[in-house]
Amino acid sequence: MKLIRHGAQGTEKPGLVDRDGGYRDLSAIVRDIAGPALAKDSLDRLRMIDPESLPRLPAGTRLGPCVGGTRNFIAIGLNFADHAAETGAPIPSEPIIFNKAPSCISGPNDPVIIPKGAAKVDWEVELAVVIGARASYVHANEALDYVAGVCICNDVSEREFQMERGGTWTKGKGCPTFGPIGPWLVTLDEIPDLKDLRMSLDVSGQRMQAGSTETMIFDVPQLVAYTSHFMMLEPGDIITTGTPPGVGLGMKPPRYLKPGEEMVVRIDRLGEQRQTVVAFDDWTAKVAAGEPTH
Amino acid sequence: MKLIRHGAQGTEKPGLVDRDGGYRDLSAIVRDIAGPALAKDSLDRLRMIDPESLPRLPAGTRLGPCVGGTRNFIAIGLNFADHAAETGAPIPSEPIIFNKAPSCISGPNDPVIIPKGAAKVDWEVELAVVIGARASYVHANEALDYVAGVCICNDVSEREFQMERGGTWTKGKGCPTFGPIGPWLVTLDEIPDLKDLRMSLDVSGQRMQAGSTETMIFDVPQLVAYTSHFMMLEPGDIITTGTPPGVGLGMKPPRYLKPGEEMVVRIDRLGEQRQTVVAFDDWTAKVAAGEPTH
Repeated sequence: MKLIRHGAQGTEKPGLVDRDGGYRDLSAIVRDIAGPALAKDSLDRLRMIDPESLPRLPAGTRLGPCVGGTRNFIAIGLNFADHAAETGAPIPSEPIIFNKAPSCISGPNDPVIIPKGAAKVDWEVELAVVIGARASYVHANEALDYVAGVCICNDVSEREFQMERGGTWTKGKGCPTFGPIGPWLVTLDEIPDLKDLRMSLDVSGQRMQAGSTETMIFDVPQLVAYTSHFMMLEPGDIITTGTPPGVGLGMKPPRYLKPGEEMVVRIDRLGEQRQTVVAFDDWTAKVAAGEPTH
Repeated sequence: MKLIRHGAQGTEKPGLVDRDGGYRDLSAIVRDIAGPALAKDSLDRLRMIDPESLPRLPAGTRLGPCVGGTRNFIAIGLNFADHAAETGAPIPSEPIIFNKAPSCISGPNDPVIIPKGAAKVDWEVELAVVIGARASYVHANEALDYVAGVCICNDVSEREFQMERGGTWTKGKGCPTFGPIGPWLVTLDEIPDLKDLRMSLDVSGQRMQAGSTETMIFDVPQLVAYTSHFMMLEPGDIITTGTPPGVGLGMKPPRYLKPGEEMVVRIDRLGEQRQTVVAFDDWTAKVAAGEPTH
């Protein structure tokens, strides 16, 4: 099952993807793809519905982030051996946990805004895990029972804010629009093997990242279990699990995003995201003029 | 005005403190001390109410965290010159930002649970700022317009998880019950000077921390403004602003919390917190037996 959230930013409604790839509205069935709707029995109930019985959504409907109500947006650093090498960092012996501000979450095809005064905005295609049930001290062999599904996350990052402004990585990871999530929340029954998903990210037509979840250092069950030993995970929380090689920071010389460029972000079975990069001033001018910003 | 949240964990109701220090119920007036209720005009409306007209709450009512719906629980590291010295760290040139998991938030007098396998649980009395309005790129001279009020936070920390497990401080800062918040959310009109509030923390009757907000390196307006340049702040978000000297980690030898000990945490005008330290196994046994855990 592929779940979506659709409509205007901040007031998204639930929906799902039908057999032909069309979008259907779930508003009459469930309030949101969030909180209790992510529980196993709730997902089982949604799976019983014939998608053809649901109202079709018009073409061009905006997709929001595929999960709502996220409070804890956790990210795992340097979780691909080849990406760790690219950044010059040693391979971590335990998962590195950091946070993205939940207010950075955006729709899969919303613009990515270059923050005021920023010049080093970078991309990171990642597999994100959405928690479906409260998880505390869970073991890896039961960890997937606490997962509602997976989706694409572009872990957009500003490298100066992240690494040259003191302290943790937080400053460069949570700027507004730095967390495109979706297009679909895909339940695990649709994923034969979480360790065999190709991942790619193109910038303006050029393939920048090409990898596979098979080179992850810590896999999804390990990451959910590990994180749950340090903090209680709640339904709607997101763990984005690290990126393969090919980020702008790793290039010689480094290569960062410029206004007008387009990112295309893909993971097998999880669909694709498309984001246009926008300068902060252009975006605020549009907002001020009441023009649509996506 | 001093706002509270009262009742069972997870279903707290709004309230306020009357002239005699009694607790009154605000359930008929506002849904929660959260989200839109934290806006300036909403607080102004609550201020117009005669507390004597509200239902009295019975003695012994549990206080929950004084704000609900927090998504982003931000903490500032090493923000007191003398505390930075105590930990051996240099005085930061910019604020250090890290995150506490929102699921760690607890009531001001709830027990603090020593996590499984942990032996280095430490205390930190802090002034916490509760955001009242969406804040992005705000200037320090207008930053207080975005603040709903302030409260005490005990930034409970596990030092091995924080500093010996790789990566950022996140692992030692967000364990369940590591974020007692309250007792009251105190609006700024009750605080003549945010830079002149004495702070203290006692463990089992012994004064461990004694400081004042006057030795903060970055003050509240600077911290709100600075943070808002890296992430959008939303109503209910919390920024806890760092601790004065006297943490267990800084003692020679270090001194950590043991089951049965009691912390008393005080800040001028913001009331006091009292937490009993509980071993993980004792606490889970109580939960399993259906006994009250606070």
